[in-house]
Amino acid sequence: MSFIVQPHSLHFEAPLPLQSGASIRGYDLSYETYGQLNAARDNAVLICHALNASHHVAGCYAGQDKSEGWWDNMIGPGKPVDTERFFVIGINNLGSCFGSTGPMHVNPDTGRIYGADFPVMTVEDWVDAQARLLDALGVHQLAAVMGGSLGGMQALSWTLQYPERVRHAVVVASAPNLSAENIAFNEVARRAIVTDPDFHGGHFYEHGVLPQRGLRIARMIGHITYLSDDVMNEKFGRELREAVTQHASGYRYSTQDVEFQIESYLRYQGDKFSQYFDANTYLLITRALDYFDPARAFGGDLTRALARAQSKFLLVSFTTDWRFAPARSREIVKALLENRRAVSYAEIDAPHGHDAFLLDDPRYTGVVRSYFESISGARA
Amino acid sequence: MSFIVQPHSLHFEAPLPLQSGASIRGYDLSYETYGQLNAARDNAVLICHALNASHHVAGCYAGQDKSEGWWDNMIGPGKPVDTERFFVIGINNLGSCFGSTGPMHVNPDTGRIYGADFPVMTVEDWVDAQARLLDALGVHQLAAVMGGSLGGMQALSWTLQYPERVRHAVVVASAPNLSAENIAFNEVARRAIVTDPDFHGGHFYEHGVLPQRGLRIARMIGHITYLSDDVMNEKFGRELREAVTQHASGYRYSTQDVEFQIESYLRYQGDKFSQYFDANTYLLITRALDYFDPARAFGGDLTRALARAQSKFLLVSFTTDWRFAPARSREIVKALLENRRAVSYAEIDAPHGHDAFLLDDPRYTGVVRSYFESISGARA
Repeated sequence: MSFIVQPHSLHFEAPLPLQSGASIRGYDLSYETYGQLNAARDNAVLICHALNASHHVAGCYAGQDKSEGWWDNMIGPGKPVDTERFFVIGINNLGSCFGSTGPMHVNPDTGRIYGADFPVMTVEDWVDAQARLLDALGVHQLAAVMGGSLGGMQALSWTLQYPERVRHAVVVASAPNLSAENIAFNEVARRAIVTDPDFHGGHFYEHGVLPQRGLRIARMIGHITYLSDDVMNEKFGRELREAVTQHASGYRYSTQDVEFQIESYLRYQGDKFSQYFDANTYLLITRALDYFDPARAFGGDLTRALARAQSKFLLVSFTTDWRFAPARSREIVKALLENRRAVSYAEIDAPHGHDAFLLDDPRYTGVVRSYFESISGARA
Repeated sequence: MSFIVQPHSLHFEAPLPLQSGASIRGYDLSYETYGQLNAARDNAVLICHALNASHHVAGCYAGQDKSEGWWDNMIGPGKPVDTERFFVIGINNLGSCFGSTGPMHVNPDTGRIYGADFPVMTVEDWVDAQARLLDALGVHQLAAVMGGSLGGMQALSWTLQYPERVRHAVVVASAPNLSAENIAFNEVARRAIVTDPDFHGGHFYEHGVLPQRGLRIARMIGHITYLSDDVMNEKFGRELREAVTQHASGYRYSTQDVEFQIESYLRYQGDKFSQYFDANTYLLITRALDYFDPARAFGGDLTRALARAQSKFLLVSFTTDWRFAPARSREIVKALLENRRAVSYAEIDAPHGHDAFLLDDPRYTGVVRSYFESISGARA
């Protein structure tokens, strides 16, 4: 059994100005904390989440036997990010669907559910909202900010937006921006949602329906891109479902039945996701991924873009991750080195594709453990 | 201007037994021929098509300025497959939507449109139907059978189903079976079509609607997988549409607008495809891809599976093709060599991904030209 945790929520009345020019006011942020903030207030670690995650990073809620925290293998007492030493903060981003204010909540300015009118959020907006939460928690400077994938983009952005508030940034399986192929996959997923007749232009809440067809397709596409070709072949290969192999001729010869194990797995993942994830949140989060591009304001020059960063860095990538390939992490490493920043970089030879950043590979968790030991050692 | 061609059609009354155990009777096959069958009837080349192609392989129809043949760069007078020397046959497969009998036609047994009841077709079934067409054309033995992608699977299958009828097989950008990842992409595309409310279980013809939403998504997914990450970055990168760049702040900050060029391109491709391609055909053809696996009856042993082949082979793959990667072609090469078959293999360092098999790369067309010159030289 893991340690016991509980979620919290903070209300923010003052408007938060957003990159789009809009602003949002009267919103709530859900968060959790693990460990104790020390007297010097210098042992805080902020964890930033990716698409399908939340403030519930680690530990168990009262009554649970098993942690449902998405990074429970990484964070906790005695874990690589050791909550005996660090005060760890998990936060749910604005626009998400796991507690913080999002498209399914009421807009205080209109009294109606936001739906498609929820303001577009960027990585930079999330970081600004996270900074306000840290202010409220009395944390001025972070020992570290850490995230994987889209969470890694937030960690990187922290070092640029609030350079003096971050001592270390741990950026896992991330990229300085999305490639055209990644934007393309996001766009297909969004089209599947938006063209679902139950989407109603994003105001489906009022119609009492959910665009589950679209969400299913979006999730299936996502799942394919999170896994490597190798791990899919190893896990599923061309295996047929049991019901099919009992059939005399081998195949069922049907265009609509589920025959291969991989089909069954994908349908299951799509169905499950479509029952709990919000369609407008999916659009918002994939758009934040598309937009993130700190080099953009510097004519595409990442080295100039990262010149503002003052923190030290650990970057981690995984060899079979084709969505956020090692080459993309190396771009960040190169740009930081050109700015003479302290950078550690680990390229883990893992078979699991992008999903590897959530899995328990001792080479990966070992690197993170060592890095955090060096942080706390330097302060001890 | 290219050479003038015209489509033909042949009616087959006798039932064709299918792998599924079903059969189809009273069907038509559309085909075209280019060049002349010689007196010895030994210069025929059969071209097999992939998902979105037809019997119209090369040349112009009367009145056209420009060829719409899908392999016009490869086939014609003086081209790599030289119709001054070879009698080239293009055929539209059963179940397709470009002329041969398919799901949008009337089932002679019921008097109703087939729709979802069109029998499931396999690569082997198509080859059997092609063999009947060759019988009707008076061609007993092919100088060569040639195809790319799914067409390459048909070429390979010809050498196994009718070993004595094939002297050479040219198998381009193909594979001995689909990987789990490929089946997964097919399955997502099929789910998008089948869950489109306008699909009506495959009987949409009777409802006067088309499942265009699903077809759009299917095509968008397909397009991403046909291109390489490199070529997408080169062609589109993170470029924004002109209408967006005129916007002061750069981005539009919208979850539903088209902002990136790659989004615009994909939507256009999806829209165009959904206007002419048949949804049931899409299901049938992707399923034929999934099922193809000649090694299956041999416990997965490809070497044993290919022992029946008697022809000589040219295999071609493209380095950036991640859908039908070079490693898959090498599996076929290895299995043929283990059977002491004559195999030439060219791995072309092309940036265009799977699409490269349709493009005009001189290293690629040069290899095909040399191979066909050696075929005709040997007989000259």
